[in-house]
Amino acid sequence: MTAPPVALLPPSGSLASRVLKGEVRAASRLMRHIDDGTFDATSDLRVLFPHTGRARVIGITGPPGAGKSTLTDRLIAHYRAAGKTVGVLAVDPSSPFTGGAILGDRIRMQAHAMDPGVFIRSLATRGNLGGLSRATADCLRVMDAMGREVIIVETVGVGQDEIDIAQLAHTTVVVLVPGMGDDIQAIKAGILEVADVFAVNKADLDGADRVVRELRSMLELRRAVQGSPPPPGGEALRGAPASGGAGWEPPIVKVVAARDDGVDVLRAQLDRHFQHLTDSGELRSRDLARATTQFVALLRERLLRAGLARLERERGHLAGIAERIAAREADPYALADGLVLQGVP
Amino acid sequence: MTAPPVALLPPSGSLASRVLKGEVRAASRLMRHIDDGTFDATSDLRVLFPHTGRARVIGITGPPGAGKSTLTDRLIAHYRAAGKTVGVLAVDPSSPFTGGAILGDRIRMQAHAMDPGVFIRSLATRGNLGGLSRATADCLRVMDAMGREVIIVETVGVGQDEIDIAQLAHTTVVVLVPGMGDDIQAIKAGILEVADVFAVNKADLDGADRVVRELRSMLELRRAVQGSPPPPGGEALRGAPASGGAGWEPPIVKVVAARDDGVDVLRAQLDRHFQHLTDSGELRSRDLARATTQFVALLRERLLRAGLARLERERGHLAGIAERIAAREADPYALADGLVLQGVP
Repeated sequence: MTAPPVALLPPSGSLASRVLKGEVRAASRLMRHIDDGTFDATSDLRVLFPHTGRARVIGITGPPGAGKSTLTDRLIAHYRAAGKTVGVLAVDPSSPFTGGAILGDRIRMQAHAMDPGVFIRSLATRGNLGGLSRATADCLRVMDAMGREVIIVETVGVGQDEIDIAQLAHTTVVVLVPGMGDDIQAIKAGILEVADVFAVNKADLDGADRVVRELRSMLELRRAVQGSPPPPGGEALRGAPASGGAGWEPPIVKVVAARDDGVDVLRAQLDRHFQHLTDSGELRSRDLARATTQFVALLRERLLRAGLARLERERGHLAGIAERIAAREADPYALADGLVLQGVP
Repeated sequence: MTAPPVALLPPSGSLASRVLKGEVRAASRLMRHIDDGTFDATSDLRVLFPHTGRARVIGITGPPGAGKSTLTDRLIAHYRAAGKTVGVLAVDPSSPFTGGAILGDRIRMQAHAMDPGVFIRSLATRGNLGGLSRATADCLRVMDAMGREVIIVETVGVGQDEIDIAQLAHTTVVVLVPGMGDDIQAIKAGILEVADVFAVNKADLDGADRVVRELRSMLELRRAVQGSPPPPGGEALRGAPASGGAGWEPPIVKVVAARDDGVDVLRAQLDRHFQHLTDSGELRSRDLARATTQFVALLRERLLRAGLARLERERGHLAGIAERIAAREADPYALADGLVLQGVP
């Protein structure tokens, strides 16, 4: 929280070697600079990359107020009790100014401050589409490379996030709660597509059984139409893992995270799902899909960044170019093709 | 509907000149090939581009079953009665195999088959993110260049679509209906962000007033928090027009599209909004934002396509590369940077 300004950072590359030794402060700085985007972390990420791919990644998503943070804290405790080191990435869109994220960090830090086996970071950066940014994937790699055995990625389930988290995680938990009003519950096609496990939190409140019933009938409906064309928006999941994986029916677990009720059952289901992925070979196909998607996203970002930079060098600022395009004085197709033909022989 | 196979198509470029003469068959073929992606339409689009930017674009979105098609048909009739030529782009995700789209076309064609002032096309192509694809923007340009005065883009409001349609349209109508169950109504932050006008369709059904009341309180809530940080997912709209534009409060219009009740009022509100955009200067800033977004999207797509092609030429198939990345035998950062450094000096 008191990292020195960028100028005082050690030269690029040295952070990575310290991360590999498990130095929390170095990992924290590297992730902060990935999140801020003020520092080109590529050389560090290159050093770390061969050491990634060992962590088990659990995604936790759901509407605001579903109690995801409390549930995450309980899961941390359960995994710690089982002797696992834990990393948590909380992607917090509630404050674009990171205020909320930092406050959240501090409150959580207190609960786990004395435990070196728990490493929690909040990210404020959002992708261009409002989804989890590539920064999240890079920060996940930092935690992975430093040897965290279980990494929990927590995010509010808003549109694209739900899909993105399924891309990053081995197992995705969708957290719902009763009594948030019918509108919030928003039974969208999206949550069915990403949920490997449903957690109905605050299950001691009225209406928990109704939520469970609704989920059950959604799952039944899906079974009935399986083999049919994907639902509207289903193509969004192209390249993403299908919910659960073949032969997996998402279980629905009632929990009261605040009282630690049912969290052991939830954890058992998470472990059962990971075992299913391993046994069915789905783990490997998800790894491949993830590698493809992340690599294409990386390539797209790098190529666009370099392309825009060259365009601005050669043709002036993007704003001016857009003005000429809007006035039909410049031809966007010719500009794009000119850049591509020049740049990619 | 009976376009010859690609091989029989006239050479690229000649379709565009026929489109500029207003030839519906040529426009239809060009759009079909843009949608199919079997034909590089760039040279045609380059010819058309200087002739675009004249059409007024109305976006219509809302949940499945809201009666968007019926409402669109009614609006067509109203704009035709006012002497305007009309184009309709129906982006239909309900059938990834275009069956639904074509059937929809045929049914609609019958209603307007004898009117050369109405041109309706359905698109089946979806973007990678499940959103309206860039093909939609290109087809919009074809209709624009052929001189359609009013173009209606109709799509199911699923996630990203709502945002994309606001990018394309001058005025976005969100259509809601009573009695679809509380869950479907799904009062998401998204619809507030994109709606310039709300249409509550099937307003003769019970519950229409409740929908209106809910919308009113959402709008009041938004007024109360205006100036606060954007809502979760709000950054998704970066570069997109703010709902309504400064000084515009989205009106809520009750309609019964099937009986043509209230559609005149809706049309008056659409015209009032366009006048507001013109008077406030918002029209120009939206045009600029749209030009920027579309150009960057074009650039991103072209650069990635060329980059991937070169990568596969030099390093083998993407699937193999992904396997080596997943096995940590290849370094995605080095691959991406190598391509960028080579390609964009």
